[in-house]
Amino acid sequence: MAEDCDTTADTPAGVWAAADWGTSNLRLWVLSCDDRLLARIGDPRGMLTLSSNGFETVLRERLSPWLGTGQRLAVVACGMVGARQGWIEAPYLPTPGRPIEMARLRRAPVSRDDLDVTILPGMAQAEPADVMRGEETQVAGHLAAEPHFDGLICLPGTHTKWVRCRNGRVERFRTCMTGEFYALLAGHSVLRHALEGAGWDDQAFADAAREAARHCGAVIDGLFGIRASSLLTGTSAAQSRARLSGLLIGAEIGTMRDEWQDRPIVVIGSGRLTPLYARVLADQGAAVATVDAEAATLRCLAAVHAQLRTEAT
Amino acid sequence: MAEDCDTTADTPAGVWAAADWGTSNLRLWVLSCDDRLLARIGDPRGMLTLSSNGFETVLRERLSPWLGTGQRLAVVACGMVGARQGWIEAPYLPTPGRPIEMARLRRAPVSRDDLDVTILPGMAQAEPADVMRGEETQVAGHLAAEPHFDGLICLPGTHTKWVRCRNGRVERFRTCMTGEFYALLAGHSVLRHALEGAGWDDQAFADAAREAARHCGAVIDGLFGIRASSLLTGTSAAQSRARLSGLLIGAEIGTMRDEWQDRPIVVIGSGRLTPLYARVLADQGAAVATVDAEAATLRCLAAVHAQLRTEAT
Repeated sequence: MAEDCDTTADTPAGVWAAADWGTSNLRLWVLSCDDRLLARIGDPRGMLTLSSNGFETVLRERLSPWLGTGQRLAVVACGMVGARQGWIEAPYLPTPGRPIEMARLRRAPVSRDDLDVTILPGMAQAEPADVMRGEETQVAGHLAAEPHFDGLICLPGTHTKWVRCRNGRVERFRTCMTGEFYALLAGHSVLRHALEGAGWDDQAFADAAREAARHCGAVIDGLFGIRASSLLTGTSAAQSRARLSGLLIGAEIGTMRDEWQDRPIVVIGSGRLTPLYARVLADQGAAVATVDAEAATLRCLAAVHAQLRTEAT
Repeated sequence: MAEDCDTTADTPAGVWAAADWGTSNLRLWVLSCDDRLLARIGDPRGMLTLSSNGFETVLRERLSPWLGTGQRLAVVACGMVGARQGWIEAPYLPTPGRPIEMARLRRAPVSRDDLDVTILPGMAQAEPADVMRGEETQVAGHLAAEPHFDGLICLPGTHTKWVRCRNGRVERFRTCMTGEFYALLAGHSVLRHALEGAGWDDQAFADAAREAARHCGAVIDGLFGIRASSLLTGTSAAQSRARLSGLLIGAEIGTMRDEWQDRPIVVIGSGRLTPLYARVLADQGAAVATVDAEAATLRCLAAVHAQLRTEAT
């Protein structure tokens, strides 16, 4: 993505920022004009905590070391910042279609023109109804690296996305609320009593995932058993936690079998979920690779930034 | 259950009380010595809200009109009052086995002998691990009315029980957390936004239940669509609520098919869940009947009370 730095339209060093602004947090990356990472910033003020005019305040605060130079700082942002309850609504792109359309980016309203914020829309599918905001950026980043990718992209998270891609386009996608199920069950259900205590049990995870991948009913009638086992046989929190996770992820991967079987699948993510999904997929016979989410996000946002700079000159 | 009233050991009218003391509430019935219902009392102080010596206080308060007559008031109780965190632990009966064993009832400690409280234990299953407290009483009440019942009893609730019965015994049982899933998803997940507003849609419920009974994966990848539909097409809260309920109950009933297929099934409950389960079961081809939970509970507790009175004379 590195290009000759244009020193007229940007700050002398051409510094710019990429942002993935989700429901619960903001991830900011500050990059040089040749896309070297200068700073990585995390902030807990996600979309849910902000009114529409709160976003600019947060950005100015976190980017203050790079503002006030007399030059305009460009920010390219994806995620829930473009939702109806975000900074400014960037209407969804339709599926099937390309995940990025330069004509459909939206400029966010700012109070001073030393900041220039462009927001990427998400994608919506009519039938069956589905939406994504932020994942399309990671998908686009992978497709930019692998233009002939014909397969499935899985993006594990609170609402895991399964995205069928071909010829640089998103053909269709599906969403499983697995991450949210886990948080609700582990934090708010009767199962929370079985999870009091730290630790993890790889074998318990793998066994549970295998069970549930074979039959998703294991999630329907197997979850209460985590509590009952804990009561009757003193199953450890580590085993209980791993079993809960394994049942949920296994059931999801089993349910999605028609999508990933006989097709390359890439798991894009960061943190602990990615290797868990990849392991279960591999165990179930998938041809699976993993890709770092940050790399994919930045590849896409840098490409958009470069295109915007080209259009500006 | 009515027997000649013994006026020496009880209050002059032989009044006694039956109690179903759950996690979140207490249901009390005051009955005459010939088991006519004199009063029905509901109280929100469930087991979770009480320390072990709080139970007696609540009972004395709600039964005060019938105390202080100089005679002993017998109370026969089932439910979480006999759990480890209850009034006094009534250790589980094993499965397979009879749901009631007179030798395994526990007397609760009371401060004055004008009150006599007997607690019924629940049942525990070793493999796969499972527990119930309170449902065994409804099961026993049904088996007392139908001693030759050879089939399945479904008790819908927060943790729905599916109990295989034969020859007056519980052979085995399974638990599905469907009610708790619904409460968590409807109240705490992203789906709550789609349920803002009252109403119900029978057709949406029936369609969703049929879909999920056919393939439980509809619960794995179909739930987020309730939110997406609401966002994209303005699906009503009534439709969304009914679809959520239908997907969950349908997936449960489909998962339990091996249990109820080709076997009589009785749904014991009160409130709105019972007809919903019965309707889906019937739609799926089950030979289903419904039984009122209160009637089953009282039939069992009255039989226990009668046996206790016999043993006391």
